Amino acid sequence: MDQRISVVTLGVKHLETSRKFYVDGLGWKPVFENQEVIFFQAGGMVFALFLREQLAADFQADPATFGRAAIALAYNVRERSQVEPLIERAAAAGAKILKAARQASWGGYSGYFADPDGFAWEVAWNPDWRFAPDGGIYVR
Amino acid sequence: MDQRISVVTLGVKHLETSRKFYVDGLGWKPVFENQEVIFFQAGGMVFALFLREQLAADFQADPATFGRAAIALAYNVRERSQVEPLIERAAAAGAKILKAARQASWGGYSGYFADPDGFAWEVAWNPDWRFAPDGGIYVR
Repeated sequence: MDQRISVVTLGVKHLETSRKFYVDGLGWKPVFENQEVIFFQAGGMVFALFLREQLAADFQADPATFGRAAIALAYNVRERSQVEPLIERAAAAGAKILKAARQASWGGYSGYFADPDGFAWEVAWNPDWRFAPDGGIYVR
Repeated sequence: MDQRISVVTLGVKHLETSRKFYVDGLGWKPVFENQEVIFFQAGGMVFALFLREQLAADFQADPATFGRAAIALAYNVRERSQVEPLIERAAAAGAKILKAARQASWGGYSGYFADPDGFAWEVAWNPDWRFAPDGGIYVR
Protein backbone atom coordinates (compact mmCIF):
# COMPACT_ATOMS: atom_id res chain seq x y z
CA MET A 1 0.00 0.00 0.00
CA ASP A 2 1.42 3.35 -1.01
CA GLN A 3 0.98 6.22 1.42
CA ARG A 4 -1.57 8.18 -0.54
CA ILE A 5 -5.03 9.62 -0.32
CA SER A 6 -6.57 9.48 -3.79
CA VAL A 7 -9.81 11.33 -3.13
CA VAL A 8 -11.23 13.55 -0.37
CA THR A 9 -15.02 13.69 -0.64
CA LEU A 10 -17.08 16.13 1.39
CA GLY A 11 -20.77 15.37 1.85
CA VAL A 12 -22.62 18.62 1.16
CA LYS A 13 -26.21 19.73 1.67
CA HIS A 14 -26.63 21.81 -1.47
CA LEU A 15 -24.36 21.31 -4.42
CA GLU A 16 -25.17 24.72 -5.90
CA THR A 17 -24.22 26.48 -2.66
CA SER A 18 -20.95 24.58 -2.54
CA ARG A 19 -20.30 25.31 -6.18
CA LYS A 20 -20.77 29.02 -5.60
CA PHE A 21 -18.26 28.90 -2.79
CA TYR A 22 -15.52 26.77 -4.35
CA VAL A 23 -15.92 27.72 -8.01
CA ASP A 24 -17.20 31.29 -8.02
CA GLY A 25 -15.65 32.25 -4.68
CA LEU A 26 -12.31 30.49 -4.51
CA GLY A 27 -11.85 30.09 -8.23
CA TRP A 28 -11.44 26.32 -8.40
CA LYS A 29 -12.24 24.76 -11.77
CA PRO A 30 -14.27 21.54 -11.91
CA VAL A 31 -12.88 18.77 -14.04
CA PHE A 32 -16.25 16.99 -14.00
CA GLU A 33 -19.67 17.78 -12.62
CA ASN A 34 -23.24 16.60 -12.76
CA GLN A 35 -26.33 16.97 -10.55
CA GLU A 36 -24.83 14.88 -7.75
CA VAL A 37 -21.12 15.48 -7.66
CA ILE A 38 -18.39 17.95 -8.56
CA PHE A 39 -14.80 16.77 -9.02
CA PHE A 40 -11.78 19.03 -8.84
CA GLN A 41 -8.32 17.87 -9.83
CA ALA A 42 -6.04 18.85 -6.94
CA GLY A 43 -2.49 17.93 -7.88
CA GLY A 44 -2.34 14.15 -8.07
CA MET A 45 -5.51 13.75 -6.06
CA VAL A 46 -9.18 14.49 -6.50
CA PHE A 47 -11.31 16.72 -4.31
CA ALA A 48 -15.02 15.86 -4.55
CA LEU A 49 -18.24 17.50 -3.39
CA PHE A 50 -21.03 14.96 -3.24
CA LEU A 51 -24.59 15.27 -1.99
CA ARG A 52 -24.46 14.07 1.58
CA GLU A 53 -27.47 11.74 1.33
CA GLN A 54 -25.78 9.96 -1.53
CA LEU A 55 -22.44 9.85 0.18
CA ALA A 56 -24.21 8.38 3.20
CA ALA A 57 -25.86 5.77 1.02
CA ASP A 58 -22.51 4.98 -0.52
CA PHE A 59 -21.02 3.88 2.77
CA GLN A 60 -24.28 2.80 4.30
CA ALA A 61 -24.49 5.43 7.01
CA ASP A 62 -27.52 7.27 8.30
CA PRO A 63 -27.11 10.92 7.21
CA ALA A 64 -29.08 11.96 10.29
CA THR A 65 -26.09 10.93 12.37
CA PHE A 66 -23.72 13.28 10.58
CA GLY A 67 -22.43 15.94 12.89
CA ARG A 68 -19.69 18.45 12.75
CA ALA A 69 -16.64 16.70 11.40
CA ALA A 70 -13.60 16.11 13.61
CA ILE A 71 -11.45 16.83 10.62
CA ALA A 72 -9.62 19.72 9.06
CA LEU A 73 -8.28 20.29 5.58
CA ALA A 74 -5.35 22.61 5.15
CA TYR A 75 -4.16 24.74 2.31
CA ASN A 76 -0.56 25.79 2.78
CA VAL A 77 0.84 28.94 1.24
CA ARG A 78 4.43 29.80 0.35
CA GLU A 79 4.55 33.14 2.13
CA ARG A 80 3.23 34.26 5.47
CA SER A 81 1.74 37.33 3.81
CA GLN A 82 -0.56 35.09 1.75
CA VAL A 83 -2.51 33.71 4.73
CA GLU A 84 -4.73 36.68 5.50
CA PRO A 85 -5.76 37.58 1.94
CA LEU A 86 -6.85 34.02 1.33
CA ILE A 87 -8.96 33.89 4.48
CA GLU A 88 -10.49 37.23 3.49
CA ARG A 89 -11.25 35.88 0.04
CA ALA A 90 -12.99 32.88 1.57
CA ALA A 91 -14.96 35.15 3.90
CA ALA A 92 -15.98 37.31 0.94
CA ALA A 93 -17.22 34.12 -0.72
CA GLY A 94 -19.41 33.36 2.30
CA ALA A 95 -17.10 31.36 4.58
CA LYS A 96 -17.34 31.81 8.31
CA ILE A 97 -14.02 32.72 9.84
CA LEU A 98 -13.42 30.24 12.67
CA LYS A 99 -10.11 31.67 13.80
CA ALA A 100 -8.44 34.78 12.50
CA ALA A 101 -4.89 34.34 11.27
CA ARG A 102 -2.33 34.40 14.04
CA GLN A 103 1.07 33.21 15.09
CA ALA A 104 0.90 29.45 15.70
CA SER A 105 2.50 27.59 18.60
CA TRP A 106 4.42 25.48 16.08
CA GLY A 107 6.20 28.48 14.65
CA GLY A 108 4.05 29.26 11.63
CA TYR A 109 1.09 31.48 10.94
CA SER A 110 -2.44 30.26 10.29
CA GLY A 111 -6.16 30.76 10.51
CA TYR A 112 -9.29 28.77 9.82
CA PHE A 113 -12.48 29.25 7.90
CA ALA A 114 -15.54 27.01 7.54
CA ASP A 115 -17.00 26.19 4.14
CA PRO A 116 -20.80 26.30 3.57
CA ASP A 117 -21.25 22.91 5.26
CA GLY A 118 -19.04 23.81 8.20
CA PHE A 119 -15.95 21.91 7.12
CA ALA A 120 -12.88 23.50 8.62
CA TRP A 121 -10.11 24.66 6.29
CA GLU A 122 -6.86 25.90 7.70
CA VAL A 123 -4.83 28.37 5.69
CA ALA A 124 -1.28 27.94 6.90
CA TRP A 125 2.25 29.09 6.39
CA ASN A 126 4.75 26.63 7.84
CA PRO A 127 8.37 27.70 7.51
CA ASP A 128 9.61 24.24 8.56
CA TRP A 129 7.97 22.33 5.74
CA ARG A 130 9.35 22.21 2.24
CA PHE A 131 7.31 23.36 -0.73
CA ALA A 132 7.95 21.58 -4.02
CA PRO A 133 7.75 23.61 -7.24
CA ASP A 134 4.46 21.87 -8.11
CA GLY A 135 2.87 22.93 -4.82
CA GLY A 136 3.38 19.64 -3.02
CA ILE A 137 4.37 19.95 0.62
CA TYR A 138 6.86 17.83 2.52
CA VAL A 139 7.40 17.49 6.26
CA ARG A 140 11.12 17.00 5.63
CA MET B 1 -4.87 29.80 -5.32
CA ASP B 2 -3.64 26.45 -6.61
CA GLN B 3 -6.09 23.58 -6.52
CA ARG B 4 -4.46 21.61 -3.74
CA ILE B 5 -5.13 20.13 -0.35
CA SER B 6 -1.89 20.30 1.63
CA VAL B 7 -2.96 18.41 4.74
CA VAL B 8 -5.85 16.16 5.77
CA THR B 9 -6.09 15.99 9.56
CA LEU B 10 -8.36 13.52 11.31
CA GLY B 11 -9.30 14.25 14.92
CA VAL B 12 -8.83 10.99 16.83
CA LYS B 13 -9.80 9.85 20.30
CA HIS B 14 -6.72 7.77 21.11
CA LEU B 15 -3.51 8.30 19.26
CA GLU B 16 -2.13 4.91 20.24
CA THR B 17 -5.20 3.13 18.85
CA SER B 18 -4.91 5.06 15.60
CA ARG B 19 -1.21 4.37 15.44
CA LYS B 20 -1.81 0.63 15.81
CA PHE B 21 -4.26 0.77 12.95
CA TYR B 22 -2.38 2.93 10.45
CA VAL B 23 1.20 2.00 11.33
CA ASP B 24 1.08 -1.58 12.57
CA GLY B 25 -2.03 -2.55 10.60
CA LEU B 26 -1.79 -0.75 7.27
CA GLY B 27 1.96 -0.34 7.31
CA TRP B 28 2.15 3.44 6.94
CA LYS B 29 5.39 5.02 8.20
CA PRO B 30 5.23 8.22 10.25
CA VAL B 31 7.51 11.02 9.18
CA PHE B 32 7.03 12.78 12.52
CA GLU B 33 5.18 11.96 15.73
CA ASN B 34 4.87 13.10 19.30
CA GLN B 35 2.28 12.68 22.06
CA GLU B 36 -0.34 14.76 20.21
CA VAL B 37 0.08 14.20 16.52
CA ILE B 38 1.35 11.76 13.91
CA PHE B 39 2.27 12.98 10.42
CA PHE B 40 2.50 10.73 7.39
CA GLN B 41 3.94 11.92 4.10
CA ALA B 42 1.36 10.94 1.45
CA GLY B 43 2.75 11.90 -1.93
CA GLY B 44 2.94 15.68 -2.03
CA MET B 45 0.53 16.04 0.84
CA VAL B 46 0.50 15.28 4.54
CA PHE B 47 -1.95 13.02 6.36
CA ALA B 48 -2.22 13.84 10.07
CA LEU B 49 -3.77 12.17 13.08
CA PHE B 50 -4.30 14.69 15.85
CA LEU B 51 -6.00 14.35 19.22
CA ARG B 52 -9.52 15.53 18.62
CA GLU B 53 -9.70 17.82 21.65
CA GLN B 54 -6.65 19.63 20.38
CA LEU B 55 -7.91 19.78 16.84
CA ALA B 56 -11.15 21.20 18.20
CA ALA B 57 -9.23 23.82 20.15
CA ASP B 58 -7.27 24.65 17.02
CA PHE B 59 -10.35 25.75 15.12
CA GLN B 60 -12.30 26.79 18.20
CA ALA B 61 -15.00 24.13 18.01
CA ASP B 62 -16.65 22.25 20.83
CA PRO B 63 -15.49 18.62 20.53
CA ALA B 64 -18.81 17.52 22.07
CA THR B 65 -20.47 18.59 18.83
CA PHE B 66 -18.39 16.28 16.71
CA GLY B 67 -20.49 13.60 15.08
CA ARG B 68 -19.97 11.10 12.39
CA ALA B 69 -18.22 12.88 9.55
CA ALA B 70 -20.02 13.49 6.26
CA ILE B 71 -16.77 12.80 4.53
CA ALA B 72 -14.95 9.94 2.90
CA LEU B 73 -11.32 9.41 2.01
CA ALA B 74 -10.50 7.11 -0.85
CA TYR B 75 -7.51 5.01 -1.66
CA ASN B 76 -7.49 3.99 -5.30
CA VAL B 77 -5.77 0.86 -6.51
CA ARG B 78 -4.40 0.04 -9.95
CA GLU B 79 -6.12 -3.34 -10.32
CA ARG B 80 -9.60 -4.48 -9.47
CA SER B 81 -8.12 -7.53 -7.79
CA GLN B 82 -6.40 -5.31 -5.21
CA VAL B 83 -9.61 -3.97 -3.68
CA GLU B 84 -10.66 -6.94 -1.59
CA PRO B 85 -7.25 -7.84 -0.12
CA LEU B 86 -6.82 -4.29 1.07
CA ILE B 87 -10.22 -4.20 2.75
CA GLU B 88 -9.41 -7.54 4.37
CA ARG B 89 -6.12 -6.18 5.58
CA ALA B 90 -7.88 -3.20 7.12
CA ALA B 91 -10.42 -5.50 8.76
CA ALA B 92 -7.60 -7.65 10.14
CA ALA B 93 -6.14 -4.46 11.61
CA GLY B 94 -9.43 -3.73 13.39
CA ALA B 95 -11.40 -1.75 10.82
CA LYS B 96 -15.12 -2.21 10.57
CA ILE B 97 -16.21 -3.10 7.06
CA LEU B 98 -18.94 -0.63 6.12
CA LYS B 99 -19.61 -2.05 2.67
CA ALA B 100 -18.09 -5.14 1.17
CA ALA B 101 -16.42 -4.66 -2.18
CA ARG B 102 -18.83 -4.74 -5.08
CA GLN B 103 -19.41 -3.50 -8.59
CA ALA B 104 -20.09 0.24 -8.48
CA SER B 105 -22.76 2.10 -10.43
CA TRP B 106 -20.02 4.25 -11.99
CA GLY B 107 -18.35 1.27 -13.57
CA GLY B 108 -15.64 0.49 -11.07
CA TYR B 109 -15.33 -1.75 -8.05
CA SER B 110 -15.16 -0.55 -4.47
CA GLY B 111 -15.85 -1.10 -0.81
CA TYR B 112 -15.61 0.90 2.40
CA PHE B 113 -14.12 0.39 5.83
CA ALA B 114 -14.17 2.61 8.92
CA ASP B 115 -10.99 3.44 10.82
CA PRO B 116 -10.93 3.31 14.65
CA ASP B 117 -12.69 6.68 14.91
CA GLY B 118 -15.31 5.78 12.33
CA PHE B 119 -13.86 7.72 9.41
CA ALA B 120 -14.93 6.12 6.15
CA TRP B 121 -12.25 5.01 3.71
CA GLU B 122 -13.21 3.79 0.30
CA VAL B 123 -10.92 1.34 -1.47
CA ALA B 124 -11.66 1.79 -5.14
CA TRP B 125 -10.69 0.69 -8.58
CA ASN B 126 -11.81 3.15 -11.23
CA PRO B 127 -11.00 2.10 -14.79
CA ASP B 128 -11.91 5.57 -16.14
CA TRP B 129 -9.33 7.50 -14.13
CA ARG B 130 -5.68 7.64 -15.04
CA PHE B 131 -3.00 6.50 -12.62
CA ALA B 132 0.33 8.29 -12.80
CA PRO B 133 3.52 6.29 -12.19
CA ASP B 134 3.93 8.01 -8.80
CA GLY B 135 0.46 6.92 -7.66
CA GLY B 136 -1.27 10.20 -8.41
CA ILE B 137 -4.75 9.87 -9.85
CA TYR B 138 -6.31 12.00 -12.58
CA VAL B 139 -9.96 12.32 -13.58
CA ARG B 140 -8.84 12.84 -17.19
